[in-house]
Amino acid sequence: MDQSNRYARLDLNEADLIAGGNHVLVAYHMKPKAGYGYLETAAHFAAESSTGTNVDVSTTDDFTRGVDALVYEIDPDKELTKIAYPVDLFDRNIIDGRAMLCSFLTLTIGNNQGMGDVEYAKMHDFYVPPAYLRLFDGPSTTIADMWRVLGRPHVDGGFVVGTIIKPKLGLRPQPFADACYDFWLGGDFIKNDEPQGNQVFAPMKETITLVADAMKRAQDATGQAKLFSANITADDPFEMIARAEFILETFGPDADHVAFLVDGYVTGPAAITTARRQFPRQYLHYHRAGHGAVTSPQAKRGYTAFVLSKMARLQGASGIHVGTMGFGKMEGEASDRAIAYMITEDSADGPYFHQEWHGMAPTTPIISGGMNALRMPGFFENLGHSNLVMTAGGGSFGHIDGAAAGAISLRQAELCWKEGADPVEFAKDHKEFARAFESFPGD
Amino acid sequence: MDQSNRYARLDLNEADLIAGGNHVLVAYHMKPKAGYGYLETAAHFAAESSTGTNVDVSTTDDFTRGVDALVYEIDPDKELTKIAYPVDLFDRNIIDGRAMLCSFLTLTIGNNQGMGDVEYAKMHDFYVPPAYLRLFDGPSTTIADMWRVLGRPHVDGGFVVGTIIKPKLGLRPQPFADACYDFWLGGDFIKNDEPQGNQVFAPMKETITLVADAMKRAQDATGQAKLFSANITADDPFEMIARAEFILETFGPDADHVAFLVDGYVTGPAAITTARRQFPRQYLHYHRAGHGAVTSPQAKRGYTAFVLSKMARLQGASGIHVGTMGFGKMEGEASDRAIAYMITEDSADGPYFHQEWHGMAPTTPIISGGMNALRMPGFFENLGHSNLVMTAGGGSFGHIDGAAAGAISLRQAELCWKEGADPVEFAKDHKEFARAFESFPGD
Ligand SMILES: O=C(COP(=O)(O)O)[C@@H](O)[C@H](O)COP(=O)(O)O
Ligand SMILES: O=C(COP(=O)(O)O)[C@@H](O)[C@H](O)COP(=O)(O)O
Repeated sequence: MDQSNRYARLDLNEADLIAGGNHVLVAYHMKPKAGYGYLETAAHFAAESSTGTNVDVSTTDDFTRGVDALVYEIDPDKELTKIAYPVDLFDRNIIDGRAMLCSFLTLTIGNNQGMGDVEYAKMHDFYVPPAYLRLFDGPSTTIADMWRVLGRPHVDGGFVVGTIIKPKLGLRPQPFADACYDFWLGGDFIKNDEPQGNQVFAPMKETITLVADAMKRAQDATGQAKLFSANITADDPFEMIARAEFILETFGPDADHVAFLVDGYVTGPAAITTARRQFPRQYLHYHRAGHGAVTSPQAKRGYTAFVLSKMARLQGASGIHVGTMGFGKMEGEASDRAIAYMITEDSADGPYFHQEWHGMAPTTPIISGGMNALRMPGFFENLGHSNLVMTAGGGSFGHIDGAAAGAISLRQAELCWKEGADPVEFAKDHKEFARAFESFPGD
Repeated sequence: MDQSNRYARLDLNEADLIAGGNHVLVAYHMKPKAGYGYLETAAHFAAESSTGTNVDVSTTDDFTRGVDALVYEIDPDKELTKIAYPVDLFDRNIIDGRAMLCSFLTLTIGNNQGMGDVEYAKMHDFYVPPAYLRLFDGPSTTIADMWRVLGRPHVDGGFVVGTIIKPKLGLRPQPFADACYDFWLGGDFIKNDEPQGNQVFAPMKETITLVADAMKRAQDATGQAKLFSANITADDPFEMIARAEFILETFGPDADHVAFLVDGYVTGPAAITTARRQFPRQYLHYHRAGHGAVTSPQAKRGYTAFVLSKMARLQGASGIHVGTMGFGKMEGEASDRAIAYMITEDSADGPYFHQEWHGMAPTTPIISGGMNALRMPGFFENLGHSNLVMTAGGGSFGHIDGAAAGAISLRQAELCWKEGADPVEFAKDHKEFARAFESFPGD
């Protein structure tokens, strides 16, 4: 059944749709299955994503047609389809009238991911009009709060030197806390690796108690504030709350030195929102382990890392992993730096749409995945600034002289880039940076 | 860095690993990026999924090595990699010691989805040993509870005739409730379509109140019990709870006629667990809109629909959509029937592993997506039984004579298959079935 007479409106103009303010716009790379026409498939795609199905139904009335999603632009050669979704399509909370990201996902990237006539479709960008934007929480706590705890200026407070406790799993509580202490002698910020929680060999209550103690000792030893990002990811929101409360109580006076880490990709918006709304004063650290299943350029369905990050700001992530832009161990490209600008600026360009954030608080880019001191100067050169958090696990615990030296090497690497120094020259009077060359010979 | 001397143990035998009972086994279809060796990449993959990273770290000790995930079988020609994960790697609740699915995902299908040396990897099967299985909730409410409400036997209670209110969106409260009433004159079960919630043009409180009233009237008119699956999907677990409580209160004495629908794919384990644990007496209807992004055979990453369904039983879904096995509008294949057996039987075979469920309650297969009366006989023939829920949206509301006739045509279609009748012959004295031929001429 060709539904393009109803769901395609190629006469509509994007600028008018934006000026009207009543539509969410989405850009997909979509390819029909062999034998299906481009416009016809795009129209069926818009139908399945809003008010239609594969046949006409007797219950459809004029009101229904008023909230159809509409294909307003196609470019079959580029596999590009743009669809305008009326804002009224999206579900809102009964408790406070707020928007929910799951409704955006269910409509724009839901059943349309499994249609019989679509080879693949991937969301590459989306635009949110002001009236819908203001219904999202956005971040409540930001990197400025970290900078405050660290005693730095609240604007351009600079580089936060971080790590992930490695090995990823398999440390018992005391070695775990010792690893924290060692890193903190040189660095600022430690995150739980994303699977670290309450393992039988490292019960959370024992581990966290020792980590809080290690933080106190490291702060005393260095005279500096230290930060810890504690994993509270769980299936059960009440488990998340129990973990969070235990952690805050255990850190006591240092509770504002604690962020909550949630793997938002595997656990979903419900887990992110639990952290965001139950603990709005804690920095919400959005980990995204698993996202490569859809965000990788190799994957032709789902959405891109850019889209994931933009959604995270709407949901209220204080920080989200944005990869290493091709400088680390994970997939990624130099052009991914657009992600960092979209989540931090008030006005920014995506691949297809310009977005105004109207004062919504920024989300910190967290740089992670195979980073070490040698890879950093190029990374910063590509990005153009260093107001962010970087966590280097292997880059710290793989340093020949241990984690404290590893941490110092990261701080020096940033300095090397800031001074525009030649790394080999710079290494001559920066021992820890120099030893990174021996620690990571391939880089 | 080649890590195969640590993370590959091709001498290990699968039967021994199963007999040992200490490992979760996972089968992936994995392909290295060009230039990387198969075993080396598989070993790095196991490292990144358990205790390792891309370099050696100073903190690793003997205990750590004891919980390494191990590659125990590879077949590069078939792109097959099998990995054994020690059960102790997985996170457990501090509140009750239970397992959490998010931890399984974070480890087995987390960072390994974005590694720089992996072209793609997709989970095709997994095996859960008894000691880990018993830490999962499993379903608390099943199709037997539906059969009880419908006044049927609690074993083999048969086919539940269902629909989805269509159009998907764009009905105001009264037309929505009218559509429910019409269908219920002929059918048993209605589900909210997955995006239907609290839209401005159909506020939930108004709509649900009218639906509860329509149910009462339809029950009076037919003398039969009717069922409704209400969407409580939300980002905020407390919003889910507020919706659920409002719905139960509104249906009052018919509260056990109500299921809770949650889009578990986009909202994640946290939303499913909220419904499972806060409302264990309600049937938990796992919708999976969006899953095609990873489960489609076209997608080479993530996991299959089989894996999604098996995970849903562990999490406690009472029912989950399993597609239409190639008979409907969505992607799918006849061989997907293995899914239905894995989630309902106590002992079943997956593509790579046999699983014993040790009495864990079954999950109903919910058949949906472009179904109508004409497509059903072939579907049942392929599956071999009809103890399930089918929801046909277009197949009901697209019937020429309206939704009640649509519902009756579905019930007749099942009978046609049961009697082994020829559809054309059968149509002669079954009017609604006959009129389905005119309603869906392409099928
Ligand atoms: O283990 C990690 C980093 O450790 P290491 O420094 O040893 O590589 C990961 O959590 C990555 O951060 C995930 O990737 P993204 O940050 O891209 O999500
Ligand atoms: O709209 C639907 C069915 O309506 P219709 O009957 O009009 O096609 C969907 O919710 C499908 O059920 C989703 O697919 P799966 O069930 O495969 O998840």
